[in-house]
Amino acid sequence: MTSERVAVLGTGLIGTSVAMAALRAGDEVVGFDPSPVVLERAAARASGLRTADGIEECVDASSVAFVCAPVEAVARTSVEALEADPETVVSDVASVKSQIVLEVEASSSPVLRSRFVGGHPMGGSERSGPEAASPALLDDAVWVLTPCDATGPEAVERVASRIQAYGARPVVMDAGRHDRLVAFVSHLPQVASTVLMDLAAGEEAGEPDILLLAAGGFRDLTRLAASNPRLWSDILLANRQALADAVGRYADRLLELRDAVSAGEAGDVERTFASAKEARLALAAKPQVKTGVAVVQVPVPDRPGVLAELAAALGATDVNIEDLQIVHSPEGGRGTVHLTVAASAADAATLALEAEGFEPLRLA
Amino acid sequence: MTSERVAVLGTGLIGTSVAMAALRAGDEVVGFDPSPVVLERAAARASGLRTADGIEECVDASSVAFVCAPVEAVARTSVEALEADPETVVSDVASVKSQIVLEVEASSSPVLRSRFVGGHPMGGSERSGPEAASPALLDDAVWVLTPCDATGPEAVERVASRIQAYGARPVVMDAGRHDRLVAFVSHLPQVASTVLMDLAAGEEAGEPDILLLAAGGFRDLTRLAASNPRLWSDILLANRQALADAVGRYADRLLELRDAVSAGEAGDVERTFASAKEARLALAAKPQVKTGVAVVQVPVPDRPGVLAELAAALGATDVNIEDLQIVHSPEGGRGTVHLTVAASAADAATLALEAEGFEPLRLA
Repeated sequence: MTSERVAVLGTGLIGTSVAMAALRAGDEVVGFDPSPVVLERAAARASGLRTADGIEECVDASSVAFVCAPVEAVARTSVEALEADPETVVSDVASVKSQIVLEVEASSSPVLRSRFVGGHPMGGSERSGPEAASPALLDDAVWVLTPCDATGPEAVERVASRIQAYGARPVVMDAGRHDRLVAFVSHLPQVASTVLMDLAAGEEAGEPDILLLAAGGFRDLTRLAASNPRLWSDILLANRQALADAVGRYADRLLELRDAVSAGEAGDVERTFASAKEARLALAAKPQVKTGVAVVQVPVPDRPGVLAELAAALGATDVNIEDLQIVHSPEGGRGTVHLTVAASAADAATLALEAEGFEPLRLA
Repeated sequence: MTSERVAVLGTGLIGTSVAMAALRAGDEVVGFDPSPVVLERAAARASGLRTADGIEECVDASSVAFVCAPVEAVARTSVEALEADPETVVSDVASVKSQIVLEVEASSSPVLRSRFVGGHPMGGSERSGPEAASPALLDDAVWVLTPCDATGPEAVERVASRIQAYGARPVVMDAGRHDRLVAFVSHLPQVASTVLMDLAAGEEAGEPDILLLAAGGFRDLTRLAASNPRLWSDILLANRQALADAVGRYADRLLELRDAVSAGEAGDVERTFASAKEARLALAAKPQVKTGVAVVQVPVPDRPGVLAELAAALGATDVNIEDLQIVHSPEGGRGTVHLTVAASAADAATLALEAEGFEPLRLA
């Protein structure tokens, strides 16, 4: 892999992470940010990052320019970057893609935008600022690329080659499809979590005890509701069509299940739960864990150090923890840890925990 | 606290856990189960448990009889227990209460059921069998008691006194209110999770890549979807009215938020997210963590032992981990651990982790 010169426009969390991954891969990296303070903080975080005083200077002679600006500034900045150097390929990192492509198409010629490739690295969005940046954010992450109609294949290849060199996995799809898929698996979960929390909190006004009865399941479902309101408002509005479709279909399915419950159709209700369970277990099994996963429950007291003892017991074996969840009793005190491990490792995990005095239970 | 004789009718997970907690508190405990095999397994698990050959023998001369049978057998067994000894107070442990109360009322005289107190200990329901039993299931757990109209106050006090001796926290409310509250904080989350997983899995047929884009948020929201289909079908059908109301209101709110997004009402959308965030942060702060909580993000490689190192670094300090979540990148490889700790302990946690070579980031 030969070294290249790349530009990073916008040096917040993602921009600085891209810069660090590019520097790690041996690329020459020049950064620019409209805020001199942010740019300085990025240079402090990303050792070796050169800084520029403007877009043109930053982009000049770059192979690829990554536009890592806030959603509303992406299209404008991308077109400026395309105009800055006639050889540079320009790509962005925004969470939604159709709107960006439309905006770029509205303000560029087909020749100009033949060098534009939309992009979206999946991960890390709830952090912010250059200090939080890390090339690890991109390691093994899926990085979607969404060429527009005018985009040349060489441009896509050039961006994909850089992304791979940085440790991520390029996946090419069209912008509308990207937006539809993230509406289901990213934006809809955010909405579902937020509305559930909001609904329960609304009930609390008349029923102060309601959250006393909220156990682990409610906590799981509402964890996302603590995310950044402004960030999510911007993302949802930028993907409003796909989101409206996903939310509408989700509401339809909820009401279908409600109707089956109301009608006492036990078989239908149980089948819906059984097919969801099967799909969820398939999701839990990562590609490298081909044999599936098992869940081991371990009751633990709620005190400093107990998780260390538990993890140390497993760390001494070759058991990797695929997932771990702490379920507190509603008001603290004792809790339960749910460990997800490869099914083939469940016996070893159980034995190792028992040897340390825990009482693990493998769930069927 | 004086020792009493109590009966446990049904010695599965909850029944055996109640028996163990009662034995721990010094009570004399007699158990019965219609399955001799299950009863034998319970006696093997709960050291000191005496077994009886039938309901009458089990209940005879007991202060309290706990009916820990499957939902469909609770009312019948409770009435048999009430008839077995005219001094015994009878309480059950089913997840839904109105239906049980109606059934008991339909098959008992007011005098008989003046000794009946509905009950529901919150927690532990996804395990099953006497082997999984533990008194820890009840430690600090909220245990709702739902007296019916005919129930005498002395009966409620007698059950509450046993429950407290066993380490749980009695909370008295009427059956309808219990059912309405658990519909929101327990049954609705289960439905929301299951339907989301089912919807995404349905999309997968036409879009094989959809789950490639599913990151930590989707995993959080769908974890509950791996629960026992039969168990949940029974619970939902037994609480169908309250559930139908909760699901209907949830769907209404989802569509309201969708409409606000579709109409581009950024202020409304952001306000919904902000109020949900505030409510979720208040929920994360357990009563004993008065100063609130902080979340610390720690990038980690996905290999055996790394969680042990991380937990050991914290275990060496006095930092208690309130919650911990592992966020894998979509296809494995590197991941991030989100630690929730008391806000007052966040600095200590960060320093301890940095000393061990981690790169923790405290989220605002």
